[in-house]
Amino acid sequence: MKIIRSPTSMATWSEQLRRQGVKIGFVPTMGALHEGHRALIREARLRCNALVVSIFVNPAQFGPREDLAKYPRPISQDRALCRKEDVDVCFEPTVEDMYPSGFQTMVTLPTIARRWEGEARPHHFSGVATVVTKLFGIVRPQIALFGQKDFQQSALVLQLVKDLNLGVEVVVQPTVREKDGLAMSSRNVYLSSDDRMRAATLYRSLQAGAEIIRRGVTNGKAVQSAMAQVIEKEPAITIDYLAVCDPATLEPLSSVMRQAVLLGAVRLGSVRLIDNILVVAKQARRKF
Amino acid sequence: MKIIRSPTSMATWSEQLRRQGVKIGFVPTMGALHEGHRALIREARLRCNALVVSIFVNPAQFGPREDLAKYPRPISQDRALCRKEDVDVCFEPTVEDMYPSGFQTMVTLPTIARRWEGEARPHHFSGVATVVTKLFGIVRPQIALFGQKDFQQSALVLQLVKDLNLGVEVVVQPTVREKDGLAMSSRNVYLSSDDRMRAATLYRSLQAGAEIIRRGVTNGKAVQSAMAQVIEKEPAITIDYLAVCDPATLEPLSSVMRQAVLLGAVRLGSVRLIDNILVVAKQARRKF
Repeated sequence: MKIIRSPTSMATWSEQLRRQGVKIGFVPTMGALHEGHRALIREARLRCNALVVSIFVNPAQFGPREDLAKYPRPISQDRALCRKEDVDVCFEPTVEDMYPSGFQTMVTLPTIARRWEGEARPHHFSGVATVVTKLFGIVRPQIALFGQKDFQQSALVLQLVKDLNLGVEVVVQPTVREKDGLAMSSRNVYLSSDDRMRAATLYRSLQAGAEIIRRGVTNGKAVQSAMAQVIEKEPAITIDYLAVCDPATLEPLSSVMRQAVLLGAVRLGSVRLIDNILVVAKQARRKF
Repeated sequence: MKIIRSPTSMATWSEQLRRQGVKIGFVPTMGALHEGHRALIREARLRCNALVVSIFVNPAQFGPREDLAKYPRPISQDRALCRKEDVDVCFEPTVEDMYPSGFQTMVTLPTIARRWEGEARPHHFSGVATVVTKLFGIVRPQIALFGQKDFQQSALVLQLVKDLNLGVEVVVQPTVREKDGLAMSSRNVYLSSDDRMRAATLYRSLQAGAEIIRRGVTNGKAVQSAMAQVIEKEPAITIDYLAVCDPATLEPLSSVMRQAVLLGAVRLGSVRLIDNILVVAKQARRKF
């Protein structure tokens, strides 16, 4: 496995392969790789000739009071995982190379970024959209894989690629979970052992919402209450939001007639967790 | 010459040629092609194997009170000029294909776009940056040519390409002028015959500023006054701005020690004209 740090060398490597007709696959990450990343990398490996994984803790997507400095950076373990999964290039640019002096261009998607994570983290999605545009410009992949765990992020990337004609096939892969249902996340390491025990409550809450939709409940507020009830049984957990939304626009649905994404964000102590489930309404299923 | 309207077909055409190692050159335009465009196209023709000219009147860079509807669209003449200059593809996307329903991504460069044209036209440069990113995504050229006439625009494109790692060589070509010095512009057709006679005053004003810098004046305010004096002799012309700036940052220079760009914008009736001159300070010349 090649480790490339300079964006210019990375772009040259990709350009040469593309000219030879090689299909380049790409999994952008912030490192601290877990089983969720491994699943993305494995799927990418099956879908391309040359596989690039980037490891870059992107300062532009962290807010001033967020965990940029303490974000985990276990680089040797990350590289070992990449090697094991047969990654061809581990791209590890520096902050200085990605955001040199004079850097100013920002990519924004005001509609998709407005709600949910965008409300909680005002410049987060603009930071994500900008770094994804940059990474796609450098790596020039034909295909890129993202995890469904960050649902709003994957919706944003799909819209971004379409809007800016970036010519990359974006594939969103299902969330990988711990045995108790907690979605894999690099931030799970922050949880105290007590909070770790409670953390799967978020997923159970989303499941409760999905379950009543499957059974035929269409009222968005009713679904939201069903989800909230599960969380409220755990006084140590604070709800940031629980929402029943259109999967494409992320706008709240008053009535679930076709498909919905149930989005949740909660706090356990200083740790913030997000998760989501996609669900098809009973009514929509009946049509087949 | 091929006329391509669909962005997808354009992207496919480019991708096939790039795989064959063909160097693609690109001149993005809003049509109403004049000698300035012709010079860009001719220079591009010398520098690439396959030459694409786009003709797209980009609504995103027009303000609500601007001339979008009446902007000249002489498409058959434009195509004829392209054919004559040996253009390979005339790319003419529709507004619906460039900005389909749900489109929301905007690319912004807050620093470069803040002053001068950005002040007079608040969303103009975000519209330019967005459409250039899109066009580069579709055409994927190795080289793209822009005119110095829109100095702030070319500075913005240079910064944009660097910031978003778009991998395009951007070449800025000198302004082409009418015999009396008026910079070629698609908007010159709007000038009444009286105003057309006066219009070159803007260029003469910039020349006056450049002349005193060449002779050794370094004080920014003094240069600005020298320029203003020339315009003020023509009561039919209103000054929008006359500025002595750093060519890279476009920030005003209190003192011209190395290089400056003299920027000017004026109004004649309802027509707004811009122009600029790059000039090296006498002090900087002495060093060689």
